[in-house]
Amino acid sequence: MAKYSVGIDFGTLSGRALLADVSNGREIACVTYEYPHGVMSDSLGGKKLPMDWALEDPHDYLGVLGNAVPALLAETKVDPKDIVGVGIDFTSCSPLPVYKDGTPLCFAERWKEEPHAYVKLWKHHASQPQADRLNETAEKTGQKWLSTYGGKISSEWMIPKLMQILDECPELYSDMDYFVESGDWVVWQLTGNLVRNTCAAGYKSIWSRKDGYPSREFFKALAPGLEDAAETKLSGKLAPVGTCAGGLTEKMAALTGLAAGTPVAVMNLDAHVSVPAFGITEPGHMLAIVGTSTCHMLVDPEYRPVNGVCGIVEDGILPGMYGYEAGQGCVGDHFAWFVENCLPGGYRDEAKSRGISPHVLLTEKAELLKPGQSGLVALDWWNGNRSILVDSRLSGLMIGMTLATKPEEIYRALIEATAYGTREIIENYRKSGVGVSAFTASGGIPNKNPMLCQIYSDVLNIPVRVVSSTQGPALGAAIFGAVAAGKAGGGYDDIYSAGEKMGATEGKTYDPNPENVKTYDKLFSEYEKLHDCFGRTDDMMKRLRAIAQENR
Amino acid sequence: MAKYSVGIDFGTLSGRALLADVSNGREIACVTYEYPHGVMSDSLGGKKLPMDWALEDPHDYLGVLGNAVPALLAETKVDPKDIVGVGIDFTSCSPLPVYKDGTPLCFAERWKEEPHAYVKLWKHHASQPQADRLNETAEKTGQKWLSTYGGKISSEWMIPKLMQILDECPELYSDMDYFVESGDWVVWQLTGNLVRNTCAAGYKSIWSRKDGYPSREFFKALAPGLEDAAETKLSGKLAPVGTCAGGLTEKMAALTGLAAGTPVAVMNLDAHVSVPAFGITEPGHMLAIVGTSTCHMLVDPEYRPVNGVCGIVEDGILPGMYGYEAGQGCVGDHFAWFVENCLPGGYRDEAKSRGISPHVLLTEKAELLKPGQSGLVALDWWNGNRSILVDSRLSGLMIGMTLATKPEEIYRALIEATAYGTREIIENYRKSGVGVSAFTASGGIPNKNPMLCQIYSDVLNIPVRVVSSTQGPALGAAIFGAVAAGKAGGGYDDIYSAGEKMGATEGKTYDPNPENVKTYDKLFSEYEKLHDCFGRTDDMMKRLRAIAQENR
Repeated sequence: MAKYSVGIDFGTLSGRALLADVSNGREIACVTYEYPHGVMSDSLGGKKLPMDWALEDPHDYLGVLGNAVPALLAETKVDPKDIVGVGIDFTSCSPLPVYKDGTPLCFAERWKEEPHAYVKLWKHHASQPQADRLNETAEKTGQKWLSTYGGKISSEWMIPKLMQILDECPELYSDMDYFVESGDWVVWQLTGNLVRNTCAAGYKSIWSRKDGYPSREFFKALAPGLEDAAETKLSGKLAPVGTCAGGLTEKMAALTGLAAGTPVAVMNLDAHVSVPAFGITEPGHMLAIVGTSTCHMLVDPEYRPVNGVCGIVEDGILPGMYGYEAGQGCVGDHFAWFVENCLPGGYRDEAKSRGISPHVLLTEKAELLKPGQSGLVALDWWNGNRSILVDSRLSGLMIGMTLATKPEEIYRALIEATAYGTREIIENYRKSGVGVSAFTASGGIPNKNPMLCQIYSDVLNIPVRVVSSTQGPALGAAIFGAVAAGKAGGGYDDIYSAGEKMGATEGKTYDPNPENVKTYDKLFSEYEKLHDCFGRTDDMMKRLRAIAQENR
Repeated sequence: MAKYSVGIDFGTLSGRALLADVSNGREIACVTYEYPHGVMSDSLGGKKLPMDWALEDPHDYLGVLGNAVPALLAETKVDPKDIVGVGIDFTSCSPLPVYKDGTPLCFAERWKEEPHAYVKLWKHHASQPQADRLNETAEKTGQKWLSTYGGKISSEWMIPKLMQILDECPELYSDMDYFVESGDWVVWQLTGNLVRNTCAAGYKSIWSRKDGYPSREFFKALAPGLEDAAETKLSGKLAPVGTCAGGLTEKMAALTGLAAGTPVAVMNLDAHVSVPAFGITEPGHMLAIVGTSTCHMLVDPEYRPVNGVCGIVEDGILPGMYGYEAGQGCVGDHFAWFVENCLPGGYRDEAKSRGISPHVLLTEKAELLKPGQSGLVALDWWNGNRSILVDSRLSGLMIGMTLATKPEEIYRALIEATAYGTREIIENYRKSGVGVSAFTASGGIPNKNPMLCQIYSDVLNIPVRVVSSTQGPALGAAIFGAVAAGKAGGGYDDIYSAGEKMGATEGKTYDPNPENVKTYDKLFSEYEKLHDCFGRTDDMMKRLRAIAQENR
């Protein structure tokens, strides 16, 4: 009798539930549920939000459990008893304030109109002043953990987001019992147990196995009133990924259609969970999850401080290895912005009449261009820079336009910019002694866009393997669901054996073209000059941002 | 009995004939004729043109004489005998090779497929290598005239264009008898006399009343074979503007419907002719002719060397004054590029359904933005930089984009960039001791776009007067036609009295808004940093252009 595992991937705009065969990882079916509220960045209810906010409503996450999972079961007709475990992965850091019974503050009448009561999505950047204060304080007080995070804590992470609540809405801060990752909250909903995963805690909440959270003194130095944050708002049991958080409650069994008591794994991060999902276990093999943004995952047996990474966490990706994470804040979002804001009417009509997406049309036209032909170079900072400058106040730049510049040239330049950004990250690793010798790309974009993959291969001068499964996170979550079940429960006892059997490796490899490599070497050197000039030497982008804020 | 004068303005894409009342300058009627061949920059016949070429076919100019003028006469029913004179103005420097009987080489069977046989339009930039060689040679040999042209001769001008023919098509160079401004060629066609005007010769052909053309030694140093250029290809009678070149020939009377013998003024430059047309006679009052590109005209009683201007010519604009000319290579072209290449389908549809132009729609949306609000700054170099860097290899740049950036923000940033470019020119004059205290803008764009005028006023911190007549050049040409007639012939004896009676001054003034001035001061200081970094310090734009050329 076949056994199955369910992986539920909570993305930025939708969640999807996937059913995988525990014996070989085969994806039986996958059902997607779009979040009705989506990302709220302009307004909440009728209330206008300030610049750089990005909220979500946790009702949408319950909607995934109550819609996508039952639909998956209906579609596959699988007996819930044959499902050995459930795993979930989530965007991070996307925390929300909750009461001690697990109710989000935004569900309470008192707070439902207060933006601070909602999920601060990973791309909420309004905590930048708090991140700045945190970084200054950490540097001044010589916090050892700072080098683990590339020397800078991002505005996207847990503690700046918590500080922002205390700064701007102290009543809500007092009223909440916990501030938790949305993924940990979903596991709590499923099992009745609050179990924070150490991967997210390690990468996003400045927690380590050895030292725990930063000291009481440090929190106090950040803000009076914050000194007990670790023991109050951030408290709760912590467990490594692969751990079983508990069995599915009766209430959740009724909502999802799964069997009560089904083992549920602690939450995983969407990117990290994909490494074993794609069968990657060796050091120096970078996995890039290319979506709205890109996460770059890498394991290495040694701990080496690397400037500008998102985090270096022991056992953070695979047990016994240091997990290195870096990222680019704007990849698919970059291309989507272009189509949304710059696609000429004629191109839109052509795509429509041919029944293809504007991206396919633009790629068709951009493919005819040789590297370097447009004379354009862009910085990929439309959404700030995550690695290696770690500054959400950086912005976009494009150089080289002439009256002959065509839309497809701009589109291609935006794609190239994201490839240069990845190369910048890889070269930075190499300078710090962390080797990168292989590259796997996953996600819808590399699977749909061979031109992008060839550009990445040519810019990086490394063969680019593209895994055809676009369900890495959901499959990874299912694999961890099987690990939560354990061998005795029909699953596996560790992630290495689970990944070996269930990991997806089918795909295609793009080899560098030596002539293109030469041209891109030249263009990358121009990119680097712009990168260093506007990212390190000159604060123009920050001054322009300040002028923009003054005049809104 | 009323007397009239005809002004014929030859623009980049069309020519127009205007009938003006000699007593008061009133515009009776104006007829436009679009050039059937337009600007040929991609191909000639079926033959692909290299990068940076821009050609025209002189048949189109004859088409203006044979179509617009008869239509003007038919429309107004004026008796040709009541027309006292004809003036023409032309883009410059737009020269063509001709035989000694006035036949253009491109009319000859032998040369009709050869691009070098056609008019090299002002914006033909493929003579940049020749301009570079000329500038180096001039600097090395200490040519005195260099400072008259801001220290640099542009690739747009006469001698680099002549050098390009000798370099690339020596057979055609030998075969031609003259290389003449298209405007001088049209006057030659009209009158049978080759009379070059000293204004164009002074601004574009390195000629001065005192010293004539550069020396034989200098021409020889530029290229063997060029030493006799001044006595051969550039030879011919020279006369100042306002001079009568001769009477209309019988043949041209038949073509145009005008009376044979009607006095024809020597050619004027389109921009220069507008100064008296708009009643400007005082020093320090800048006239900006805002069209596809912008020309900035200014008179001053003193000669002061100014870096980066297009030219400083004695009597070049008004007799007894030094005429200063500067320019921006890309203004209306900039906005047109945006609409052509970046206008989203939704915007296009909205404009269409409301029956308004995309420019009106974009302006409507951009008007709602406060200065600085978008956080964007652009360099206005999509078509190179004419003043004050004089380098056609410079290209566009935009900084500050985020995922929230909207098309109207980009559009507004392009408009602001052209205002910053104008301010850069004015500040450069002031640094050199040439005062600028008043500003008049003319052309279709300032008349159609009050937002642009307010932005210019706020950026420059000077009241901007907009003259509502959009026929400055044609009216100016008509005024010079009346001067060619002389008082005895029913016109005027000098340009001051003609300008006083016939000049158009009706319009509107935009005063600076002090709050906007403050914001734009900040933004301009960022523009200047980009201007100096990419225009003076770093050659990135030129390197990118070289990479583009290698990969075409």
